[in-house]
Amino acid sequence: MSVAPGRLIVLEGPEGAGKTTQLRRLDAWLEQHGVPHVNVREPGGTPLGDEIRRLLLEPGRHMDPRAEALLFMASRAELMADVVAPALARGLVVLADRLFLSTYAYQIAGRGLPEGEIRQANALATRGIVPDLTLLLTIPAAAARARRERRGAPDRMEQAGHEFHARVERALAMFVSRDWQTDHPECGPIVAVDGDGGVEEVFERVLAQLAARWPDTFTALDESRS
Amino acid sequence: MSVAPGRLIVLEGPEGAGKTTQLRRLDAWLEQHGVPHVNVREPGGTPLGDEIRRLLLEPGRHMDPRAEALLFMASRAELMADVVAPALARGLVVLADRLFLSTYAYQIAGRGLPEGEIRQANALATRGIVPDLTLLLTIPAAAARARRERRGAPDRMEQAGHEFHARVERALAMFVSRDWQTDHPECGPIVAVDGDGGVEEVFERVLAQLAARWPDTFTALDESRS
Repeated sequence: MSVAPGRLIVLEGPEGAGKTTQLRRLDAWLEQHGVPHVNVREPGGTPLGDEIRRLLLEPGRHMDPRAEALLFMASRAELMADVVAPALARGLVVLADRLFLSTYAYQIAGRGLPEGEIRQANALATRGIVPDLTLLLTIPAAAARARRERRGAPDRMEQAGHEFHARVERALAMFVSRDWQTDHPECGPIVAVDGDGGVEEVFERVLAQLAARWPDTFTALDESRS
Repeated sequence: MSVAPGRLIVLEGPEGAGKTTQLRRLDAWLEQHGVPHVNVREPGGTPLGDEIRRLLLEPGRHMDPRAEALLFMASRAELMADVVAPALARGLVVLADRLFLSTYAYQIAGRGLPEGEIRQANALATRGIVPDLTLLLTIPAAAARARRERRGAPDRMEQAGHEFHARVERALAMFVSRDWQTDHPECGPIVAVDGDGGVEEVFERVLAQLAARWPDTFTALDESRS
């Protein structure tokens, strides 16, 4: 089996869209096909990032929106330096549960922070690493809200109101447009994946996107399975 | 006595220059003259900032320089939003132990991080608040080194090598130039104060700078003492 070149693949989507389920499924698939990979999530993924995650998600903790954004960036900087960059250099696939788009959706659209400053802070954190592909899971807003509401004990981010989540969802929808992507080259290519349906049904769509982009790798991997 | 208008006064200088001693002296002077003021230090000064301070100063903790810079900024954002902006709005004097110049000296000159991105992250944190005056305490590099070495149990920042501290000191010296200040309006006016000498001797120089800038206030305060 040939070694897959390092690739940074990101799953994004509103809370309740099924990102975590699909990431688990993709992780299992890569495992089964012997593709060396690492899974990362934000905030967290490093000892420092886990401490930052604890601060960010603690219910009821007071936090200025700018401090919140900068804490996310600090966690990202550590994750990029210590996990993502070395893994990509070793030719691994990196699966990320959220990355830049969440910042742009939650901090800029959701919290209303200035886009230019957030982008520069993000550039500082990411040191020029661009995702190879971002899959944006989409589901109808009402379905996302229903899924959020079924979950117990919301964390600090999930406690934000419906209006906040509506702004986030509108922003995520915008990111799929070619114009937006041309203006934001640091985010790499972004494709929408219909997240409505059963786990396997959605996973087939995820896999189809990966195979469409990297047919050789995915075919070669499939053949090397036996 | 007239209420002093809100003023943000910052003390900066290399480690060992006597900032903390002079701030304590200035704090006592303002107290004695009935000037309402608050003291802030970075990182820290808020519940969130104190947690960040603990992460930043913990000896031996691994931290990417970009994560470090962003943690400083997160602490600054919380301090600006929760303490500095409200105090200035109430007409208080805010005395700061380090602020922007430390970032520019330690993170840009010391750690070699990109200036443009650091400045934008700082702009995000500070929301346009500009110091009214920064007093930069200067002492000969050899004297600063000797003072650092006399202190026990260095924290994580103090553990950085002599070369790092030399870069920081060269940068601090540059900040006094008019050209640098013209190019960095977000830092406000910066004046050097000779920090070589006894506590009272140096404090007289500090006070002279404040009186030179705000003669009415300082005269009025002095007359209102009785």
